[in-house]
Amino acid sequence: MKSMKSQDQAIRLWIVGSIGIDTIATRDARRENLLGGSVTFACAAASFFTKVGAVGVVGSDFPAAFLERYRRFGIDLSGLQQAAGKTFHWEGVYDDDMINRRTVKTELGVFERFTPELPESYRDAPYVLLGNISPELQLHVLEQARGARFVATDTMDLWINIARPALLKVLARTNLLTLNDGEARLLTGCFNLRACAEALLKMGPEYIVIKKGEHGALLFTRDGIAIIPAYPVKAVCDPTGAGDCYAGAFMGWLAKSGRVNLSTLRQALLHGSAVAAFGVEDFSMARLESLADAEIEARVAELRAMAAL
Amino acid sequence: MKSMKSQDQAIRLWIVGSIGIDTIATRDARRENLLGGSVTFACAAASFFTKVGAVGVVGSDFPAAFLERYRRFGIDLSGLQQAAGKTFHWEGVYDDDMINRRTVKTELGVFERFTPELPESYRDAPYVLLGNISPELQLHVLEQARGARFVATDTMDLWINIARPALLKVLARTNLLTLNDGEARLLTGCFNLRACAEALLKMGPEYIVIKKGEHGALLFTRDGIAIIPAYPVKAVCDPTGAGDCYAGAFMGWLAKSGRVNLSTLRQALLHGSAVAAFGVEDFSMARLESLADAEIEARVAELRAMAAL
Repeated sequence: MKSMKSQDQAIRLWIVGSIGIDTIATRDARRENLLGGSVTFACAAASFFTKVGAVGVVGSDFPAAFLERYRRFGIDLSGLQQAAGKTFHWEGVYDDDMINRRTVKTELGVFERFTPELPESYRDAPYVLLGNISPELQLHVLEQARGARFVATDTMDLWINIARPALLKVLARTNLLTLNDGEARLLTGCFNLRACAEALLKMGPEYIVIKKGEHGALLFTRDGIAIIPAYPVKAVCDPTGAGDCYAGAFMGWLAKSGRVNLSTLRQALLHGSAVAAFGVEDFSMARLESLADAEIEARVAELRAMAAL
Repeated sequence: MKSMKSQDQAIRLWIVGSIGIDTIATRDARRENLLGGSVTFACAAASFFTKVGAVGVVGSDFPAAFLERYRRFGIDLSGLQQAAGKTFHWEGVYDDDMINRRTVKTELGVFERFTPELPESYRDAPYVLLGNISPELQLHVLEQARGARFVATDTMDLWINIARPALLKVLARTNLLTLNDGEARLLTGCFNLRACAEALLKMGPEYIVIKKGEHGALLFTRDGIAIIPAYPVKAVCDPTGAGDCYAGAFMGWLAKSGRVNLSTLRQALLHGSAVAAFGVEDFSMARLESLADAEIEARVAELRAMAAL
């Protein structure tokens, strides 16, 4: 566990998304009552680099021990709402390949009526990660972000299919869009990823990060392409939240660096690969909880050596 | 078209595999009577770097114009047999993603009774690429390769399923095994690619190249891992033969360099990525026929810049 962060630092980055309690089955194990959700993974990953605030909702059943786990990462919880009812619950089963998965159960609970509100202490934060929630809610919370200088947006096939007009409004106010290859194809109607990226760059964002899981990511800008490798993990225990760890870590790294350009983005994404590769080594946040800053830097160095040409 | 190679250079590399006449349909086009087969693509790609000989069989229907196309690449044809009967024919249809494909028709023709024999002028060649034919035939031809110093082997799911004992004998005499991720999993029974590679390294080869198509490749050795990016192609016209171009180009580059180590392999595989990326820009060998050495080096430089960390 890294050292406790001071609670009175200004928030540099806030992250909105889901908070859930997961049940996860893989070939080798089945676990219940796991702390999950995009905010959980992304904030934990970001906390290694910057002061991060969580915007989300939990139910009255949410264990105090889970709140304590956030606090131990130094995550600010002023943006966390607690509502009467049950916390969002997701149950999934992974294929043997540890990539494809099937949702067994989704109980929205208090997440169904979630309207994110920014605490005053988050409103001047320069970095924003809009996790995968409905584009209407992403817009609603973005309206309150008067200090936002760099907005990263995540989305999914559901919103592309049922809320495209609102999503396009979000994209017009987005600096960096992160999505996977299938979503890029769905959103643009293109097959070739370079063609997808060209179409996406016209929708507003200056930066497109196409995530390909174990195959790494591609960063597209108007000026060029960067290929970011994934770290070849020795044993994947639970891939849940890998994409959120990736996004949280790279936004945390950017927030720390304070500058956004092709060069800082490469380094930010490389750190995203490293942290995400740790995250999948155990269930929920377990590996992140034991992770030291020096381990992240060692893995970044290892990845750089593997990918050196 | 690069300059004609002298016909009297010693053969540095020979390649055995299939030679076929393909019919290929994509979303945008359908073409018949295309020169194809693993030997065709691999030899053409290798010819940019070294003196290469082709070992394969064609039927009595094989057009003289196709032989002339090989010669224009400077490919030595002493290892080419012409037999009475029809040339191997393959017909395939690509999905819109230009990755998955369905075989519509396979007519083995003279390929069914093919027994590769090495001409005397190939027997001292130091570099060997055993293309995807039955392991029994790979063994047969390898017996004749008295000068072989570095043997690369390609294979496929069919041989893993029906000819495993013979394949294991080939692997015991193989320096570098190239296969895709699905084949690596099938051959080892492992899921994780690092675990696959560890198991494969115990079967004989010092080097394992796991090809992941548009996602690049991973090179595993006992001492470490190299991540080799694929070049993001703007418009894929026909992906047929991309893996063969890749293997041919990297073996050609190695044969030219004359040294095999982690560093030369990285450069060889990078050149494989570049040449394969050109190959898919048009049907059959069309793009390779117009390709200049300087274009390959420019693409290598571009790929290096994209992947620089």
